[in-house]
Amino acid sequence: MEDVLNVDLLYDLIERKDYQEIRERLTGMNEVNVAELLKDLPPHAMVLVFRLLEKDLAAEVFAYLPKKTQNDLINSITDKEVKDIIEELFFDDIVDLVDEMPANFVNRIIKYTNKEERSLINHFLNYPDDSAGSLMTIEFVHLKKEYRVKDALDHIREIGMEKETVYTCYVTDAYRRLEGIVSLRKLVISDPTDTIDDIMERDIVYASSHDDREEVSLLFQKYGFLAIPVVDKEKRLIGIITVDDMLEVIEQEATEDFHIMAAMSPEETPYLETSVLRLAMNRLPWLLILMISATFTGSIMMKYENMLQTVAVLSAFIPMLMDTGGNTGSQASTLVIRGLAVGEIEPKDFLKITFKELRVALIVGIALATVNFLRLVFFSKVGVDVALTVCLTLVVCVSIAKLVGGNLPLLAKRLGFDPAIMASPFITTIVDAITLMVYFNIASKILFV
Amino acid sequence: MEDVLNVDLLYDLIERKDYQEIRERLTGMNEVNVAELLKDLPPHAMVLVFRLLEKDLAAEVFAYLPKKTQNDLINSITDKEVKDIIEELFFDDIVDLVDEMPANFVNRIIKYTNKEERSLINHFLNYPDDSAGSLMTIEFVHLKKEYRVKDALDHIREIGMEKETVYTCYVTDAYRRLEGIVSLRKLVISDPTDTIDDIMERDIVYASSHDDREEVSLLFQKYGFLAIPVVDKEKRLIGIITVDDMLEVIEQEATEDFHIMAAMSPEETPYLETSVLRLAMNRLPWLLILMISATFTGSIMMKYENMLQTVAVLSAFIPMLMDTGGNTGSQASTLVIRGLAVGEIEPKDFLKITFKELRVALIVGIALATVNFLRLVFFSKVGVDVALTVCLTLVVCVSIAKLVGGNLPLLAKRLGFDPAIMASPFITTIVDAITLMVYFNIASKILFV
Repeated sequence: MEDVLNVDLLYDLIERKDYQEIRERLTGMNEVNVAELLKDLPPHAMVLVFRLLEKDLAAEVFAYLPKKTQNDLINSITDKEVKDIIEELFFDDIVDLVDEMPANFVNRIIKYTNKEERSLINHFLNYPDDSAGSLMTIEFVHLKKEYRVKDALDHIREIGMEKETVYTCYVTDAYRRLEGIVSLRKLVISDPTDTIDDIMERDIVYASSHDDREEVSLLFQKYGFLAIPVVDKEKRLIGIITVDDMLEVIEQEATEDFHIMAAMSPEETPYLETSVLRLAMNRLPWLLILMISATFTGSIMMKYENMLQTVAVLSAFIPMLMDTGGNTGSQASTLVIRGLAVGEIEPKDFLKITFKELRVALIVGIALATVNFLRLVFFSKVGVDVALTVCLTLVVCVSIAKLVGGNLPLLAKRLGFDPAIMASPFITTIVDAITLMVYFNIASKILFV
Repeated sequence: MEDVLNVDLLYDLIERKDYQEIRERLTGMNEVNVAELLKDLPPHAMVLVFRLLEKDLAAEVFAYLPKKTQNDLINSITDKEVKDIIEELFFDDIVDLVDEMPANFVNRIIKYTNKEERSLINHFLNYPDDSAGSLMTIEFVHLKKEYRVKDALDHIREIGMEKETVYTCYVTDAYRRLEGIVSLRKLVISDPTDTIDDIMERDIVYASSHDDREEVSLLFQKYGFLAIPVVDKEKRLIGIITVDDMLEVIEQEATEDFHIMAAMSPEETPYLETSVLRLAMNRLPWLLILMISATFTGSIMMKYENMLQTVAVLSAFIPMLMDTGGNTGSQASTLVIRGLAVGEIEPKDFLKITFKELRVALIVGIALATVNFLRLVFFSKVGVDVALTVCLTLVVCVSIAKLVGGNLPLLAKRLGFDPAIMASPFITTIVDAITLMVYFNIASKILFV
C-alpha cells in the first residue's frame, strides 16, 4: 500500500533520470492508476514513462488513457510499439478505438490487425449503439462438454491471460449453440476427473445481439452474474458481456434520462469537455418547442383579460397555481418514468397508477388547499370567495396534474417513444394551460365575473 | 436451455403429485428463476415446492424471495428447516433480514446464529444505511503471504462454496492489515510452487467502512473490479463489497436523485408497492415549501398591477417567459447535479461552469429572442416596443437562469447539502421571481409605463 508512485515523485525521478526506479515502481501498479499519472504529464514525459512500462501493462494502461493522450501517444511512438499495443489489447477496446478516433489514428492501428479481425471489427461496428452487440467482447473461454475438469483448468492456464474473463466459461455444441455454463469457482472445487458435462449449468440466461442494453442491464441486476452470453438469431454464441461494462451502462442510461427529462438531447461527453456550441444545440430545439407551446397558455390569460382587470387580485395567485400544478405533475411523471426504466412499472399498470395518483392527489390537494385557505383568510386578508376560488382550483388542478403526469409517460412508452420525454418541462407546459382554464372557470362561477 | 420449469407445468406436476419430476427439474435451475416461480404460487404449494429443493439451492432461493414470501415460508416450516436455511445463507443476507423483517420473524432466525455471529450482526446494523459498511460481506477468502499457489488453490477448493466470491482473495499481515490481493485467475495461471508473496498485487484500491456508497460505486466504475476490500480506521480488513451489489447501488442512487430532483423525499420501495399515504407524505412537505415560496412571485405581479392594467398585452407573455426561464435554468442545474453525482464535476469548477453557461445562455437566449421577435412582429402583430421588451427579457432571464441553475447545485454541495435539491422545482421558483422583476423593469424603461 506504500510503494506507490505519485506525480511529484515521478517528476523528481524523471528529473534525476532514474528510469530504473520508475520502471520498478510502475511494475505492479494498477493500470488505472498508471493511466491517471500519465495523462497529466507533458507529452514528451508521458511518452518517456509509457516506454518504461512492461508490454502487457502498457496495453492495459493504453486502454484507460483519455482519447487525447491516446492520440498523442500513437503519434509519437514507433510502428513496432503500436503493433505491440494492438496485439495485447482486448478486441472490444480495439473496436471502441476504431469507432471513436480520427481517421489517421485508426489507419495506424488497423494496419496491425489481420484480415479476419478487420472483417470482425466491421461487423461489430454495425451493431446499433444501444444494443447488446455493441457491448460484446469475443475473448471468452470456450469449453467442450467432453473435457475433464483437469483439462479445462489446464486449458484456462494456457489461454487465460488473453481472455477478458475466465470466471465464466461457455460450452457449445457442434453448431456453436450454447449448451451450458461453468464458473471457474465450480471448476476449482470440482473433482478433477469429472467431465464438464457433469458439472455445467443448463439453465442459461442470455441476451440477443440486438437486445437493448437497458434490458441487458436489468438481467445483470436480476441475476447478479459476472458475465452474460450473447447469441445471434440462430442461438449461436457470438460473444459475452462482462459486468464491469454494465456499471457504466447503468450510469449512462440514467444520465441519458436525466438529460431528456430536463428537455435536452442526451450527451455522453462529460459536461466540462462538451463544447459551448454543442451544449447550446442540445438545449435549443427543446426550448423552442416549449416556448412556442407556452404561448398557448399566454393566450388563455389574454382571453380572460377582462376578468383579471375586474378582480386584479386573481393574478397574484397565478404563479403559485401554475408552479404547484407543474410540481405535482412532475412528481407523478418522475416516479412513473423511473419505474418504467428500472422495470418496476409496465404500461399495463395504467389503471393501478391512475387510481393511486388520484388518491394521492386528493390527500395532497386538500392539504395544500387547507393551508392556503387559512393563510389567505387570516394573513393575506383576501375575501373568502377569492380564497375559495384559489383553493378549489388547487384541488382540481393537483388532481388533473397527477393524472396527466402519471399517464403521459405510459402513453409515450406505448407509442414507442422514450417515456422520459414526458417529464417536468412538457408536463408543466400542459398543466399550466389546464390550471389557468380551471382557475378562470371556477372564478367566473364563484365570483360571478 | 429446454428442460426449464414454467408455472403451468409446475401446477400440472403438483396436481399429478409428481414430486420426483419437480425435484429433478428444479435441480440445476438458476436460483433467481426458482424464486420467481415460487413467489407466484399459493402459500401451501410454495412451501411444498420449497421443500423439494436441495439444501444449498434452498438457501439461495430463499435469499431471492420477496419479503412477504420469506415471511410466509418461515412461518410454515419446521425449526430444523429454518436452521438449515440460516446456516447456508451468506452473512450479508442474514443482516438484511434482521434489518428489514418484523420482530417475530427475526426472533425465529436469530436463534440459529451463534453468539459471535449475533454480536457481528449488531455491529453491522450500526453502519449508516448509505455507507460502505452496510454493503459489506465477511465471507471472503483469506490467504497468507507464505502460502504456495498450490496450497492456496487447495484452500479455496475446501472453503470456496461458503464464500461470496473466490475470484479475489485477500492477503493480510499479523495485525489483519491488508497487504495484497490475488485474483483466482492469477492463481490458476501461476506456477503452483510460487508463493502468494511472489504473485500478489500490492497497489490496492480499498474503501473505508464509513465511506459513502456512492464513492464506492465510483471506485468500481473507475477500476472495473469484481470486489473491493473494506478497512476500518486502523486499516484492518473487515469485509469486502462485491460488484453485484454495486449494480443495485448505482440504480438506487440514481433513483434517489430522480426523486429529490422532482421535489420528493427519496423512496426505495417500488412505486406500485408504496402506500398512497406514504406517496403523499413524500411529496407534501416539498409542495408546501414551494407553494409558499411561489406566493412571493405572486406578490411581484401584484406590485406591477397598474402596469399590467395599462398594457394588458404584457400578461400574455408571462407564462412563456416564466416557463422558458425555468426550463433553461433546470437544464443547467440538471447537467451540474448529474456531473457532481458521477464525479465529473467538482465544486472548484464553478468558474469554468459560470463562464460556460454564460456563453451557452447568450447563444440560446439570442436564438430564442430572434424567433420570438419575428413571430411577435409578423404573426401576433404586437408593437415593436412590446416585442423588444419580451425579447430583451428573454435574453436577460435566460442568462440569469443559466447562472442560477449552474451554480446553486455547487453551492449546495459546498454547504454539505445534496445538490439534487437544486433541481427544476426550486430553480423554477427562484427564476420565476427574477424573470418577472426583469420583465417589469425592462417594460417600464421601454414602454414608459
